[in-house]
Amino acid sequence: MSDNEINIGLIGFGTIGAGVVEIFNKNQDIVNQKCEKQVNLKKVADLDITTDRGVKIDPEILTTDVNDILENDDIDIVIELMGGYEPARTFILKAFDNKKHVISANKALIAKHWEELISTADKNNVKFSFEASVGGGIPVLQTLNENLAANRIEAVYGIMNGTANYILTKMSEDGSQFADVLTEAQEKGYAEADPTFDIEGHDTAQKLIVLTKLGFGEYVEQSKFHVEGISNITPEDIEFAKNELNYAIKLLGIAKQSNGGLEIRVHPTFIPKSHLLASVDDVFNAIYIQGDFVGPVMLYGQGAGRMATASAVVGDCIDLILNKNKKISYGPNISQVEKIKKISEVSSKYYISLKALDRPGVLETITGILNKNGISIESIAQKTNSETQAVPIIIVSHETKEENMQQAIAKINDLTDVKEKIRLIRILEE
Amino acid sequence: MSDNEINIGLIGFGTIGAGVVEIFNKNQDIVNQKCEKQVNLKKVADLDITTDRGVKIDPEILTTDVNDILENDDIDIVIELMGGYEPARTFILKAFDNKKHVISANKALIAKHWEELISTADKNNVKFSFEASVGGGIPVLQTLNENLAANRIEAVYGIMNGTANYILTKMSEDGSQFADVLTEAQEKGYAEADPTFDIEGHDTAQKLIVLTKLGFGEYVEQSKFHVEGISNITPEDIEFAKNELNYAIKLLGIAKQSNGGLEIRVHPTFIPKSHLLASVDDVFNAIYIQGDFVGPVMLYGQGAGRMATASAVVGDCIDLILNKNKKISYGPNISQVEKIKKISEVSSKYYISLKALDRPGVLETITGILNKNGISIESIAQKTNSETQAVPIIIVSHETKEENMQQAIAKINDLTDVKEKIRLIRILEE
Repeated sequence: MSDNEINIGLIGFGTIGAGVVEIFNKNQDIVNQKCEKQVNLKKVADLDITTDRGVKIDPEILTTDVNDILENDDIDIVIELMGGYEPARTFILKAFDNKKHVISANKALIAKHWEELISTADKNNVKFSFEASVGGGIPVLQTLNENLAANRIEAVYGIMNGTANYILTKMSEDGSQFADVLTEAQEKGYAEADPTFDIEGHDTAQKLIVLTKLGFGEYVEQSKFHVEGISNITPEDIEFAKNELNYAIKLLGIAKQSNGGLEIRVHPTFIPKSHLLASVDDVFNAIYIQGDFVGPVMLYGQGAGRMATASAVVGDCIDLILNKNKKISYGPNISQVEKIKKISEVSSKYYISLKALDRPGVLETITGILNKNGISIESIAQKTNSETQAVPIIIVSHETKEENMQQAIAKINDLTDVKEKIRLIRILEE
Repeated sequence: MSDNEINIGLIGFGTIGAGVVEIFNKNQDIVNQKCEKQVNLKKVADLDITTDRGVKIDPEILTTDVNDILENDDIDIVIELMGGYEPARTFILKAFDNKKHVISANKALIAKHWEELISTADKNNVKFSFEASVGGGIPVLQTLNENLAANRIEAVYGIMNGTANYILTKMSEDGSQFADVLTEAQEKGYAEADPTFDIEGHDTAQKLIVLTKLGFGEYVEQSKFHVEGISNITPEDIEFAKNELNYAIKLLGIAKQSNGGLEIRVHPTFIPKSHLLASVDDVFNAIYIQGDFVGPVMLYGQGAGRMATASAVVGDCIDLILNKNKKISYGPNISQVEKIKKISEVSSKYYISLKALDRPGVLETITGILNKNGISIESIAQKTNSETQAVPIIIVSHETKEENMQQAIAKINDLTDVKEKIRLIRILEE
C-alpha cells in the first residue's frame, strides 16, 4: 500500500456491490478521514456492466475483465462480492497470490474452503477479512476475535437468517401457514425464488461454521452436524407455545461447550419470552456469546441487506488500511474442543406434539414409553376431547438426552392410536 | 515491547483489579496464545496490599510504590484501575511520558480530562485504550470506532448504568417506591452507600461524553447538557405507563443528530415495549447505535462488575500487544456536529402527570394551556372522580418542543386547582 493512496478493486456489482459503491459515493470523506489517506474505488468488475444498479458510478472504472483487478499492481485490496464457490474461490486465491488483501462476504465459500483460503492468505502475508459474512452489519466476528479475546468462549448462538426469522415472526403474529408466509415473503423480496438455502438452515449452518472456528478454534464441516430448517413448523405449535408456554420460536444456530464436548447444531427452537433473543423479530439477526469472564453479550442488527452488509465490508476495508501491520487472528490458534458431540448426545428440553385417538389408556401408554426411556415430563396437555377424531397431545419434557427422546418418539409413532406422527421442537433453556 | 515477552503493571487492586488478576490466573494460556507472546502481570500497585481480595496472587509482585510500575523500564503496558480523578490522572500522564501504553476503565477521568489524556498519549506516540470505561464488557467503543467506521453515526443511546436499571426494573415489577428499592439494592451490593453518582445520571453522562466523542467527533463537557436522574420517578407513573400505554421506563443517555444539531441528554425515558431496549432488565446495559448505512445495531451485556469489566480490560491489553503499530482512532478526526442543541430546543413526545381538583373546567383549562403552547395531545386520562380530593391527570403529548412544554407546565403548575406539580417523563419514539 502506498503512503497516501489506497486503491480498491471490487468484484461483483450486485446488490451488496452496489451498496459498497454507494458508501463510497456518500461517505468518501468519512472513509478518507478515518484512514488519513485517499481511498479510491478504482475498478469494479462484473460480467454485466450495463444494467443500472441505481447508484452513480463512473463508467470508466467498470470492467468485465476480472484481471483488471487481480493482475493490476495498483490495486491493494480486493473486495469479492460475487458469491458462490466458483469462480469466487479461484479469484480470491489469485488475489492472495498477487499479494492483495481480500475482503469477502461469501460465507458459503469461507465455510467450505476455510483451510485453503486462510493458509493461502497467510502464505502470502496478506489479510483476509470477512466480517460481513456473518450477521451482515453486526460486529460479531471482531467481537469474538478481539474484544472477548481474554475469555474462554462457552457458547455462541443466535438468529442468523433474516428470511427464516421474518417467516417465523409472521407465522407467530398472524397464525398463518408456513407456505403462505413464504409466498408473501417472496413477493416482498424477503425470500429468494428458491428459498431452500435460507429456510432449511444451510445459510445458518455456514455462518455457524465461521463462528465456531473463531469462538472455539475448531473447524467443523457442515456434514458433521445436525441442520434442520423451519418448513415443517406449524402455526398450531407456535400458537400453543406462545399462549400456553410463553415461548417464541426462532431458527437458531447453536455452538456450545458442554461436559467435555462441543455441541453444534441448527434447528428451530422454542425460546422463553424472557430471553432477549425471543424479542428479535422480522428480518433482524442477533447473536449471543457467552464468555467465561464477560458473561453474556448479545449483538443485534440487520443480518443482511445491501446497506448493512456494505457497511461491514467497508468497515473491514478501513480496518485493513489503518492496521496494515496488524496481526489478524482467526480464532484461538489451538482448538478448545475435545470432541464434537453427535446430536444424539446433546441434552435439551423438548416440546413434542402429536395427534392420537382419545381412547382409554393412550396417554398412559405414551407417558409410560417416555418414562421407560428416562424422560421426565414437565407438562402435558390434551387439547380437546373426541372419541372419533384424533386429538392433539402436547408434551414438554425436562432436560433429557436426544438419543432417549428419539427412541421414545419411534416407539410412540408406532402406536396404532397415534394418527399424526410426532413433531419435535427443542427448547432453549436460560 | 520485546519480541517474546510483554510486562504489564496494574495500578489499583480493587474489585476490577482483582478481576484482572483472576483472568491472568485462569486464562493465561489463552492470552499468551492470542498474543503469541509470554504476557506477564509483572507488578500490582495499591496502597493496601494486605487485604485478601479472594484471588491468588504472588506476593512478590505486590507493591505500595506506584513508581515500581511507572518508572520501571520493563513495564510495557500500564492498567489503571484505581478510579477517581487524582492521583489517577497524574499516574496516567506519567505513564505516557515514560512511553508506556495505558488501559483504563476510569470514565470519570476520561470524560473530564479527554483532551489532555489523548494529546499526551499522542505526543508520546503511545496508546490509550478504554473499552471498559463504557458498557463494561460490551464492545461498544470498538464497534463505534472500527466496525461502523464507514458510517455517519446518526444516534447513540442506551442503558448505561446497571444500578439505575436494576432499581427501575424492580419498581416496575413490584410497584415499589424508589427509596425502598434503593435500600434493597444497597443491601444486595447493587448500589453504593452513596448512590448519587449512579441514580442522578452522572455516571451515564460520563459514558455519554465518551460515546459522543467517538460517534460524532465532538467533546461535550457535562455542564453543557441536561442530566436528570431517577429519584423522582414514582411507581404510579411506571404502572400507568406499563399497563395503559405499554411503555417501560429506563434511564437513557441519548446523543443524536437531528436537524442540524446534536441532541445530548440523560434522563428517565418511557420506551415502547416493542423496542428491544425495553426488554433490557436488571443490571444489564445495552447501547443502540444508528448508522446511515448499517441501520440500527444494539449491543447488550453486563455494563459493570468485576469479571465483565476485567474482560474488556484484558481484551484491550491483547489488542495493544497484537497491534503495536495499529493506529488508534478516537472518533472522527473532524467533528460531525454543527451545534449542540439546548434541551429547550429538543423535540420529544411527553408524558406528564399531575393532581388537580376535579372541578368543572379544570381539564379544559389545562388542555387550553397546552393548546396555546402549540402542544397537541395524544391521550388524556383522569383516573378517579372525587369532588373533594385532587385526582391524577395523565397526558401524553405528540412530539413537541421542550421549550413549549416547559412554558405550558409552568402555567399549569400555577393553577390554583393543581395540587401536585407536574412530573414530566420524555418518551422515546421508535
